[in-house]
Amino acid sequence: MLIVGERLNTTRKAAAAIVAARDAGALVREATRQKEAGAAYLDVNAGTFAAGEGEALGWMVETIQGALDVSLCIDTSSPAAMAAALRLHRGKALCNSITLEEARLGPVLDLVRESGSAVVALCLGDDGRLPAGSAEAAANGLRLVDRLLGAGVPLEDIYLDPLVRPIGTDPAAGVTVLETIRRLKAEHPRLKTICGLSNISFGLPRRAVVNRAFLVAAMAAGLDAAILDPLDRDLMALLAAARAVLGQDRYGLAFVRACRRGAFDQARPEEGLSPGGASEGVGESGGAGAGP
Amino acid sequence: MLIVGERLNTTRKAAAAIVAARDAGALVREATRQKEAGAAYLDVNAGTFAAGEGEALGWMVETIQGALDVSLCIDTSSPAAMAAALRLHRGKALCNSITLEEARLGPVLDLVRESGSAVVALCLGDDGRLPAGSAEAAANGLRLVDRLLGAGVPLEDIYLDPLVRPIGTDPAAGVTVLETIRRLKAEHPRLKTICGLSNISFGLPRRAVVNRAFLVAAMAAGLDAAILDPLDRDLMALLAAARAVLGQDRYGLAFVRACRRGAFDQARPEEGLSPGGASEGVGESGGAGAGP
Repeated sequence: MLIVGERLNTTRKAAAAIVAARDAGALVREATRQKEAGAAYLDVNAGTFAAGEGEALGWMVETIQGALDVSLCIDTSSPAAMAAALRLHRGKALCNSITLEEARLGPVLDLVRESGSAVVALCLGDDGRLPAGSAEAAANGLRLVDRLLGAGVPLEDIYLDPLVRPIGTDPAAGVTVLETIRRLKAEHPRLKTICGLSNISFGLPRRAVVNRAFLVAAMAAGLDAAILDPLDRDLMALLAAARAVLGQDRYGLAFVRACRRGAFDQARPEEGLSPGGASEGVGESGGAGAGP
Repeated sequence: MLIVGERLNTTRKAAAAIVAARDAGALVREATRQKEAGAAYLDVNAGTFAAGEGEALGWMVETIQGALDVSLCIDTSSPAAMAAALRLHRGKALCNSITLEEARLGPVLDLVRESGSAVVALCLGDDGRLPAGSAEAAANGLRLVDRLLGAGVPLEDIYLDPLVRPIGTDPAAGVTVLETIRRLKAEHPRLKTICGLSNISFGLPRRAVVNRAFLVAAMAAGLDAAILDPLDRDLMALLAAARAVLGQDRYGLAFVRACRRGAFDQARPEEGLSPGGASEGVGESGGAGAGP
């Protein structure tokens, strides 16, 4: 399970304040905490900065990678901002996102090829329309995969996003995502899928518990990657437990190790104020912490 | 999702003490709390009482049903104890369990037929052996279903139990259960499945979180019923969220109602001491509490 840390998105107040003030220390601390908690990629999104988006994204990329060995998920709908950020990114980025919409597809596809990035590919139609169900979502996704493969992007670098809608407005929203994942996997067993979690619970109370249930159900359907908050220890504990239950962690050994080093213990109050603290986590990029 | 409350099992110290002392007040309080938390059936098991098992089970059935309108899941491997308990039970019981083993199959099948009980049918071989994988488990289960149907037990009264082993000793234990559920559903879409949760986490730390992940994964595979602790509010919240995510609770309306009436709020310390308190829950038999 690949974890993309979602916290450095300027739609979040704290992240917006960090980017507005160009507070490099706070940015690096937040990035470090997410990496130590198990994120393999850190999402960076400066979409609220409009005209200054490319410059803000570029600052985030340079500042984080200047202090920390971590790959970033460049999250923007602007090809210009994507280009600015990818130009500065070292190593393999995750380009978030690409769609079938022709106006954006060409330029972003060139950027992906030139930079050798992996890519989040959305299952939207070529008119940017949300698909009506899992058959249409999977068909959109598979057409986009064909375009990407044709452009020389390797299958293992493609993460298809089935697009998550709120169950509060569409009762079939959860089932549609699970079916879309299964359809995509049936067509291309090696094709990877990715989801953001939080949209599923929009408008509901106790959103965290809804997101958790959705994560486990999506993992059971074959989800490979998730954009989530790796500092949510209850979520990370459930994710690690789900890996064990789903046969992705033999004998639950990684789960046991993470429990032993306190990865899922509730944060002490001061941790929120002094980030970069004791937060060791679990996941592909985790496990830096020493055992007991 | 049918919930069978697991707390009145004498392998649990508190339940053993209640039954040993024939403490009717405590028995009824514990039963009431589970029913109010959303259990449709309450499991009663007096297996630790050996020679006195039938008498103890009979006391549990009479005492609970004398005070409370609830159906019981009669949990014993002894045909004699099963007979004693079913004789006293009013309404439709859930007979837990029946297997292909010939020595027990005949007598228990007669009891099920005579009492009109529903039945938990274990996917064991006819020699009582645990199946080696999901194919064998499903084959055992389907043979038992054929025997039950042949004896006149209706399909909707059969709950097949795929048998849960610990992932700490069998890394494929979780996946095997999920595959068994899918195989059984593929064969008989209307056939119901049931699981106890806690065996999956035997020997691991943080067993509750492993059980929770397993419950959601099994629900996603099609699980219809679970034997669990309905007083575990985090578990019940996740279960209710999973129903919404899996399209079993349209728009999450039941989930929202349960949140609003505080069904998932953490118990106040005194609640543990004065059961029968504020614990309202969620599930088929829940919803007795008034909304806000």
